[in-house]
Amino acid sequence: MKDISVTLPIKDRFELPEGVIYLDGNSLGPLPKGVRTRVAEMMTQEWGRHLIRGWNADDWMGQPLRVGSRVGQLIGAPEGTVVMGDTLSIKVYQALSAALKLRPGRKVILSDSGNFPSDLYMAQGLIAQLDQGYQLRVVAPDDVAQALNDEVAVAMLTQVDYRTGRMHDMQMITAQVQAAGAVMLWDLAHSAGAVPVDVAGCGCEFAVGCTYKYLNGGPGAPAFIYVRPDITEQVQPALAGWLGHDAPFAFEATYRPAQDIERMRVGTPPVIQMTALEEALKVWDGIDMSAVRARSIALCELFIEEVERRCPDLHLASPRDASMRGSQVSFAFEHGYAAMQALISRGVIGDFRAPDIMRFGFTPLYVDEQDVRRAVDILHEVLVGQLWDAPEFKATGRVT
Amino acid sequence: MKDISVTLPIKDRFELPEGVIYLDGNSLGPLPKGVRTRVAEMMTQEWGRHLIRGWNADDWMGQPLRVGSRVGQLIGAPEGTVVMGDTLSIKVYQALSAALKLRPGRKVILSDSGNFPSDLYMAQGLIAQLDQGYQLRVVAPDDVAQALNDEVAVAMLTQVDYRTGRMHDMQMITAQVQAAGAVMLWDLAHSAGAVPVDVAGCGCEFAVGCTYKYLNGGPGAPAFIYVRPDITEQVQPALAGWLGHDAPFAFEATYRPAQDIERMRVGTPPVIQMTALEEALKVWDGIDMSAVRARSIALCELFIEEVERRCPDLHLASPRDASMRGSQVSFAFEHGYAAMQALISRGVIGDFRAPDIMRFGFTPLYVDEQDVRRAVDILHEVLVGQLWDAPEFKATGRVT
Repeated sequence: MKDISVTLPIKDRFELPEGVIYLDGNSLGPLPKGVRTRVAEMMTQEWGRHLIRGWNADDWMGQPLRVGSRVGQLIGAPEGTVVMGDTLSIKVYQALSAALKLRPGRKVILSDSGNFPSDLYMAQGLIAQLDQGYQLRVVAPDDVAQALNDEVAVAMLTQVDYRTGRMHDMQMITAQVQAAGAVMLWDLAHSAGAVPVDVAGCGCEFAVGCTYKYLNGGPGAPAFIYVRPDITEQVQPALAGWLGHDAPFAFEATYRPAQDIERMRVGTPPVIQMTALEEALKVWDGIDMSAVRARSIALCELFIEEVERRCPDLHLASPRDASMRGSQVSFAFEHGYAAMQALISRGVIGDFRAPDIMRFGFTPLYVDEQDVRRAVDILHEVLVGQLWDAPEFKATGRVT
Repeated sequence: MKDISVTLPIKDRFELPEGVIYLDGNSLGPLPKGVRTRVAEMMTQEWGRHLIRGWNADDWMGQPLRVGSRVGQLIGAPEGTVVMGDTLSIKVYQALSAALKLRPGRKVILSDSGNFPSDLYMAQGLIAQLDQGYQLRVVAPDDVAQALNDEVAVAMLTQVDYRTGRMHDMQMITAQVQAAGAVMLWDLAHSAGAVPVDVAGCGCEFAVGCTYKYLNGGPGAPAFIYVRPDITEQVQPALAGWLGHDAPFAFEATYRPAQDIERMRVGTPPVIQMTALEEALKVWDGIDMSAVRARSIALCELFIEEVERRCPDLHLASPRDASMRGSQVSFAFEHGYAAMQALISRGVIGDFRAPDIMRFGFTPLYVDEQDVRRAVDILHEVLVGQLWDAPEFKATGRVT
């Protein structure tokens, strides 16, 4: 079906600013070519001319499922098992609340300290709302397996740690979680489009993720949710919105969830944003995720090698073993905040996470070996400059 | 502060298709001029060039509050009491779940049969999730006051009925609800930008609404939520997302809600969609809602008068008293479905709601007296044609 014949990188599919080496696609992917034109066309022709008729004429109504199936191809989800909408935090909430209903009597949501805070917050909010003795138990990433017991209703883990890039083995952990009788919920925020993922293969009940990072859907692009198809009909939607109803336009008095994944839809989808994402996903046509992964590992290895050779004050905060790491590399550095500012002002865009983490994402679609070498050159210059010792930085906290 | 000097209509602020009389702005507002250009600019300059830096450089982070304050001006909400995000169904859920926590011991969510189904569904979903004996009680719109008692935790009402345009008196009902010790939640989906609203004046605890109807933000534009400022700190967010945290970028392990309305934020906001809305709201510069209301009433009265005079088979389904009606007029007609199809194919766009309601929205920003007269002419032609008796319609269910 797929024509896998594309050599990476495919920089020409993106509108990258001149002089920028973009190592922050793990936070917000760049603008793919064609998206601006497609969005303008959608606004002019569909919204502007078709007006309300766009829901049918342009199939805005079918878009969340159609785009979901395209995202599904990138995470190993069968057609019709993924739907788009809302934000990742909302999708986490939907999955968590449904998971608790699937395991009555079990009171623990298990997570790890490498999870993104919003996932933990959503669990805390749900627990406080339910007020029925549920608790969130957060352990170290390596301790998940031994924390499993018959109190655990659901394990909620982000596959790739947003700070360190540390990566869980989805297959192994899912099996452990399910052997303990719990439900598995994976957050793929830093996985989808970054590493090969096989949600169907690992057998997890739920997977969620966002599309503004490695999937380049633009700031605030809609999130996705996967539900394993054999349990969809048992999933009770806490967020019982009309577009998850089996017959939204019958305007019935009582909620009846759709038979399929569409029960995870809630309200009116953000059509403009969904259109930007749908166009952005065309970047992936002809791309093999295993080729992306191989290139990503090569770029990350090169970066680690060069940084460790030339910038000994930085200490690797990511796993050294590539098989344990997503598509990013983090270094701890005392003056990381200042150094990252200086890097950014020199056109090397990564980001900083407190207290001392300098984070660099490597997305082989638009980052090449030359970019990696040049980024290390500039990092080296910045370190030699020691701008954080300058009186100006000490006075203002700003490095330029 | 405001320069109220604009005469209605202001059709030149919209990109309306040639030959269309658009009477469905109560479902999806048309494309305001400038939105396409602004969105293209945002994509090129902000997403494309600034990339991740857009969150600060272009203040994407502050946008939900900034846009909320602009929407607030149209509904009588003070600066800093409204925030944008998600969908209306999600905002209903946030308000409802918080309201139940504010009235422990009370087990009833009171609503009326004129409420939009999604609001009722969200209540049903919340109740099923909580599984603590809560119930949704739905009464006729005229029976709300007498249904109030000390079991009612919250009254959730849509001010303007989506089918009939029947309008509640927010001031009076809020006072009745609060006198009974319950919390008042208003859905302003068909009110914001349609009729003058004074959320602060009526004293309600919560108000929510969407922005793709009379506020012309585009399909799937973000929703808004208002919380009365004196209770904000007591409001427990069920959807405890990181952007509602008091310090989102501290990445703390425990959720601490923001002190202000920002606690109602959840996940990453849809920046493209938010930008379209922000630009669309400029349409309202210099517009006085009381002038909009006066024109809306005049247009609706003219439409009712002309339809009743020329099309006696149609029966008014909206209140005859303008003070009891929003900015739409509905007629019941046995062949309403076919008649609406025929109208639309002739360029008069309204919509149909089962079983027999033909719905026409009158938005004085871009609808004038001539449009109303022409719409009735075409409606009259359609009725004379009796296309629903044609064998073709009987065979296909389609009228052209």
